[in-house]
Amino acid sequence: MTKKLNVGLIGCGFMGKVHSNAYLKLNKFFDVEHEMVMKCICDSNAEKLKTFAEKWGWESTETDWRKMIARDDIDLVDVCTPNNTHHDIVIAAAQAGKIIALEKPLSMDAEDGVPMVEAVEKSGKPNMVWFNYRRVPAAALAKQIIDEGRIGRVFHYRAKYLQDYTISPDVPQGGDALWRLDAKVAGSGVTGDLLAHSIDMATWFIGPIESVCAMTETFIKERVMQGKDKKMPVTIDDACAFLARFENGALGTFESTRYACGRKNQNTFEVNGEKGSVAFDLETAHELEYFDHSDPVSVRGWRTIQTWDSKHPYMKNWWVPGCGIGYEHWHINTLADFVKGLDTGEKTCPDLKDALATQYACDAVLTSAKNKAWETIKKP
Amino acid sequence: MTKKLNVGLIGCGFMGKVHSNAYLKLNKFFDVEHEMVMKCICDSNAEKLKTFAEKWGWESTETDWRKMIARDDIDLVDVCTPNNTHHDIVIAAAQAGKIIALEKPLSMDAEDGVPMVEAVEKSGKPNMVWFNYRRVPAAALAKQIIDEGRIGRVFHYRAKYLQDYTISPDVPQGGDALWRLDAKVAGSGVTGDLLAHSIDMATWFIGPIESVCAMTETFIKERVMQGKDKKMPVTIDDACAFLARFENGALGTFESTRYACGRKNQNTFEVNGEKGSVAFDLETAHELEYFDHSDPVSVRGWRTIQTWDSKHPYMKNWWVPGCGIGYEHWHINTLADFVKGLDTGEKTCPDLKDALATQYACDAVLTSAKNKAWETIKKP
Amino acid sequence: MTKKLNVGLIGCGFMGKVHSNAYLKLNKFFDVEHEMVMKCICDSNAEKLKTFAEKWGWESTETDWRKMIARDDIDLVDVCTPNNTHHDIVIAAAQAGKIIALEKPLSMDAEDGVPMVEAVEKSGKPNMVWFNYRRVPAAALAKQIIDEGRIGRVFHYRAKYLQDYTISPDVPQGGDALWRLDAKVAGSGVTGDLLAHSIDMATWFIGPIESVCAMTETFIKERVMQGKDKKMPVTIDDACAFLARFENGALGTFESTRYACGRKNQNTFEVNGEKGSVAFDLETAHELEYFDHSDPVSVRGWRTIQTWDSKHPYMKNWWVPGCGIGYEHWHINTLADFVKGLDTGEKTCPDLKDALATQYACDAVLTSAKNKAWETIKKP
Amino acid sequence: MTKKLNVGLIGCGFMGKVHSNAYLKLNKFFDVEHEMVMKCICDSNAEKLKTFAEKWGWESTETDWRKMIARDDIDLVDVCTPNNTHHDIVIAAAQAGKIIALEKPLSMDAEDGVPMVEAVEKSGKPNMVWFNYRRVPAAALAKQIIDEGRIGRVFHYRAKYLQDYTISPDVPQGGDALWRLDAKVAGSGVTGDLLAHSIDMATWFIGPIESVCAMTETFIKERVMQGKDKKMPVTIDDACAFLARFENGALGTFESTRYACGRKNQNTFEVNGEKGSVAFDLETAHELEYFDHSDPVSVRGWRTIQTWDSKHPYMKNWWVPGCGIGYEHWHINTLADFVKGLDTGEKTCPDLKDALATQYACDAVLTSAKNKAWETIKKP
Repeated sequence: MTKKLNVGLIGCGFMGKVHSNAYLKLNKFFDVEHEMVMKCICDSNAEKLKTFAEKWGWESTETDWRKMIARDDIDLVDVCTPNNTHHDIVIAAAQAGKIIALEKPLSMDAEDGVPMVEAVEKSGKPNMVWFNYRRVPAAALAKQIIDEGRIGRVFHYRAKYLQDYTISPDVPQGGDALWRLDAKVAGSGVTGDLLAHSIDMATWFIGPIESVCAMTETFIKERVMQGKDKKMPVTIDDACAFLARFENGALGTFESTRYACGRKNQNTFEVNGEKGSVAFDLETAHELEYFDHSDPVSVRGWRTIQTWDSKHPYMKNWWVPGCGIGYEHWHINTLADFVKGLDTGEKTCPDLKDALATQYACDAVLTSAKNKAWETIKKP
Repeated sequence: MTKKLNVGLIGCGFMGKVHSNAYLKLNKFFDVEHEMVMKCICDSNAEKLKTFAEKWGWESTETDWRKMIARDDIDLVDVCTPNNTHHDIVIAAAQAGKIIALEKPLSMDAEDGVPMVEAVEKSGKPNMVWFNYRRVPAAALAKQIIDEGRIGRVFHYRAKYLQDYTISPDVPQGGDALWRLDAKVAGSGVTGDLLAHSIDMATWFIGPIESVCAMTETFIKERVMQGKDKKMPVTIDDACAFLARFENGALGTFESTRYACGRKNQNTFEVNGEKGSVAFDLETAHELEYFDHSDPVSVRGWRTIQTWDSKHPYMKNWWVPGCGIGYEHWHINTLADFVKGLDTGEKTCPDLKDALATQYACDAVLTSAKNKAWETIKKP
Repeated sequence: MTKKLNVGLIGCGFMGKVHSNAYLKLNKFFDVEHEMVMKCICDSNAEKLKTFAEKWGWESTETDWRKMIARDDIDLVDVCTPNNTHHDIVIAAAQAGKIIALEKPLSMDAEDGVPMVEAVEKSGKPNMVWFNYRRVPAAALAKQIIDEGRIGRVFHYRAKYLQDYTISPDVPQGGDALWRLDAKVAGSGVTGDLLAHSIDMATWFIGPIESVCAMTETFIKERVMQGKDKKMPVTIDDACAFLARFENGALGTFESTRYACGRKNQNTFEVNGEKGSVAFDLETAHELEYFDHSDPVSVRGWRTIQTWDSKHPYMKNWWVPGCGIGYEHWHINTLADFVKGLDTGEKTCPDLKDALATQYACDAVLTSAKNKAWETIKKP
Repeated sequence: MTKKLNVGLIGCGFMGKVHSNAYLKLNKFFDVEHEMVMKCICDSNAEKLKTFAEKWGWESTETDWRKMIARDDIDLVDVCTPNNTHHDIVIAAAQAGKIIALEKPLSMDAEDGVPMVEAVEKSGKPNMVWFNYRRVPAAALAKQIIDEGRIGRVFHYRAKYLQDYTISPDVPQGGDALWRLDAKVAGSGVTGDLLAHSIDMATWFIGPIESVCAMTETFIKERVMQGKDKKMPVTIDDACAFLARFENGALGTFESTRYACGRKNQNTFEVNGEKGSVAFDLETAHELEYFDHSDPVSVRGWRTIQTWDSKHPYMKNWWVPGCGIGYEHWHINTLADFVKGLDTGEKTCPDLKDALATQYACDAVLTSAKNKAWETIKKP
């Protein structure tokens, strides 16, 4: 830990807490050259900011993110604010020459995101979008299995991301907690919030999607808008499903909803190849299912790999075999990869340009649903 | 068992064996008024026919199905032949005034099936298509749960039917065993063979599908044609996935393939409603997953219902609680329902007209895939 | 099927039905030389007997088992009567030179069983006890895996057999249906009924148990005795657990109860060896769990082997891969093995002598529980 | 956080790391009155100590635990050293009037532990033993379900704690990492290390065990002793199983081993009552299985409760519903309970006296195994 990295984080909401925890813990579990310094925390709500800073040990505070970005003692700007603010903050931070760590998704839509990518590419500084599910050990193991050629040519990709927290018509929209239900702040509904994860993962595993055909639905048409205290039309997609053709010839099916009663955070994927398959469900995140067709037929079967051996991705940094990790650790793993990239000068994926590709896919999904027609995905 | 029912079965293949077993066992396990008489078995292969008849105890044989249909001592004609023969046999049997039990799917396509339905409607005789998965106790329990209103308004329907037996390019097509891989005999590939089951089930559970958007793929383009001993183009769909909008407003996703390495017979459905959900996987067919949102939050969870209590559908006819049944019993249950309908004069579902609705859906799926566009489903 | 085998079955209860079904189906699914002839069914209840014989197609009936045994046209006597009748019937049948198929357990206790074994050994005729769980394909596969040396030296054996049907104090004892709850008829409770299965399986897999230490309990002390219509003391063991040391040095734990709320027929085993493990649960009977330590560490995991490939034990005789079998088929598989033994002249396991070894183990378990001390198991 | 709590921790090994993490995180996730101050870390290895202190932010260091205990600026002494040192450290800390948090097990044996309990009782200061598995949310939920009377009178308790890390004869014993394999340092093998957890949990759930009958085994008789670099006899129990009778009349079975190939950290319990059951497996620690017999029979089944709702024990302090926690959090939950007890003055369980009861049970288990006889458990 020879180099100090001064971090300025914007946003004291849920993701601000998740990331603060990551900065607090990184150097205690990963041997990286950079030492995290929790230099400055920023939020427009001064009262909340003070409490948060004290609790987490941030050295200083700012209520105006422009001021924080202007400070010379900040090396890395971490953006944990609602989606409609990503554009301005990232461009300003890039222009100020900061390293950028941005909570996903990239932006409101691809048009919103293009100048962001231009700005970070111009600055030439390292940048990353926190697609943390890539750093679930079981998902990283799936990537490794696919890259090792263990499942061979891929025929099928199958992803779901199911939740159920908006089934009640009494759930309001908007405000600090539920801005993800307001399209003006979030850009879109499950497509940008959940399917962006599924698309990022799929692309990472088996390459780009070529075209999509989607349908979306908004089941509850009006909800109380927090702050306005009256019912207003719901503008986001409650549910979205799409068919996909990958550039490599594989077929994909993707589905997400917040109306799947009993599914809290069921983010799944299954990849079927000619020599084997892998399958994953975030609700049992420490397990990867793996089928190896080359096993003798009488003892062939889906293996449940419990990914808590020290040989599994990330796990030698944590406790001992058999001792599981959870939601927070995937973020710390993500940060660890990014900081290792800072150590070595190598790019960490996904950066903002990679995230723009995902954003183009999300846009194509929404356009397809609107037009009821297949849509080819643009490229960054 | 006061009335004898003389059965004539056409086809000594795999389904002929499954149905023979059903006729043999029905009266031993179900209290119905009709007594099954295994009167006549018919197959064009005389040698195979003789062995089969002796083994299963069929009283007589015919090598020409037209002769069997012409016999006065046959009440019920059971059709277990390849799909391209259904049309002629069913129409002839209907014209001869026979009760008809037809192995699914109805026909090569809807056009092929319409005159069949007209013929049976004209005859006025009971008729049924063997969609046996409706008679898996767990599936029948799902139907019961939905009909009781336990899951409320339905938002989502999700079906998969995955197999893996054609991954190897060395698998041939055609012949007695693999006619399902030859579109001239089967009509289509996974759409008619597997998705017909999924569509039948979905429609039974939550009502008709209004429109679909599909994609299909043939991964291996040429295979040896049995009988011709040379490679010929593969004409069926190896895989098919489609989006669906139900008339009741629910969204559906359906997928089937024979290229899902590690999945032998994974026929699944999940239905998400506002008050609960049900989920099923044929690979653990005795279990139904049920989520009841009205349970107290601290003890709420997906219940694994082992459907082998005497109170579960069909199970009082079988052994004792805790003693499971299997593939063959779903067919016997199907026959039992049909024969109970004969006892009472009530229609048993699905009849040929119901199956025509499924055939229209399959046709719309294939048309949609061909045209790369949404397609509205016609009605019988 | 060149040789006819005339079967006489005693007992029209539940097991009589299970065995009748096996005789009806055997030749339709297994290529054996002997043809089953359902010659005579016997039960003291004449009315029940008549209905049963007609339903199942038994050619003749007897109400006195001595008369049936005296008949020259009976080759094989199958005993499906309560345990306290096994002794007399088996000895008489053996003296009459019959082939014997006896429903488990062997006898009331080992003392009751010794003369039975002597009688069959003296007759020299083939004989078998229906320990059907050996013929569950997944259990037979476990045996194969162990015999192939795949798990190596065995350290641990762990068996449970849990049910819950006697939790209510309102369940009566005795009578036709519940004679297993009356020690005068059954000999013992869960020890003879359920743990006999577990002991038979364990011995088959890894060899004899050397000594045991057990505890038993009767949770509900009095129940209505059917036929006497008054409460009488419960004389059987409701629950039994024991520690075991095998002759090969492995440690074993065994437990059975009818008071495990939620467990209908949970018959499990797990065998841990130095190179791997196998585990099984009858409630998902088509699956065997197998852990192979020689897999590369990153992709090592418990495999769920779905034992419905044609390469799995018994499965080529049933439907096609992916089509499951159930409770009844394990009995048919058992009969198939026995009849193959008749074809070839080879002994089929377990015969009555093997069952006597299991009976000695059960006796030692009960003695140990009574004396609160370790007990060495006697040998036949 | 008005009161500062100065913590002195002894031992920089694995548990020292786990506890340091707990002190670092407690106030960030739990609203308690005491603020953790990581005042002093102590280890005899000066080099290791320095690195550890810097990494975790301990304010000061000591290489002699007696010196640390003598310091006035230490309120709480946390003992994370091998078992053979617990006695001296705890007594000294108690005599110095310190609050004590002791890693389990209490001591080498009960005789070793009695004076420790006397010392803390004399001091009158709060004290706790870190039996962290009580603080797994699913286990705490099981306790709640039992206490609410949901499963009624308990008939059966069933516990396993299976690992596999000592199967290879090449695993050495002793040294910093493997002192648990050396009876001179650990007191016993799996009995004190693993079954102590199972006994603590069982007692917490349904009350004290009255008597036990056990067997133990050492499969590999000699291993290289680290430090001595030669093979020496293995003095610990590799495996232990015992039968138990609880004071409330329930029957128990317990088993632990480090020779269960494929089981990394399988700590399970199942409790069967007259109205329901609960079951748990640490390998899927976020889930509790619950069977409620009062559900209607057709929809009755084992519920898989995913314990990550904010209403589940401890979970409102962590992320949001659907976001899991892991191994480290159970320790933080444990600390939170202890510190809440310091806030309110109420005792937190288990304290050293409670742990002595568990130690007596472990002693009885080992004595029973040695004497091959039932043993009654003494009480503190």
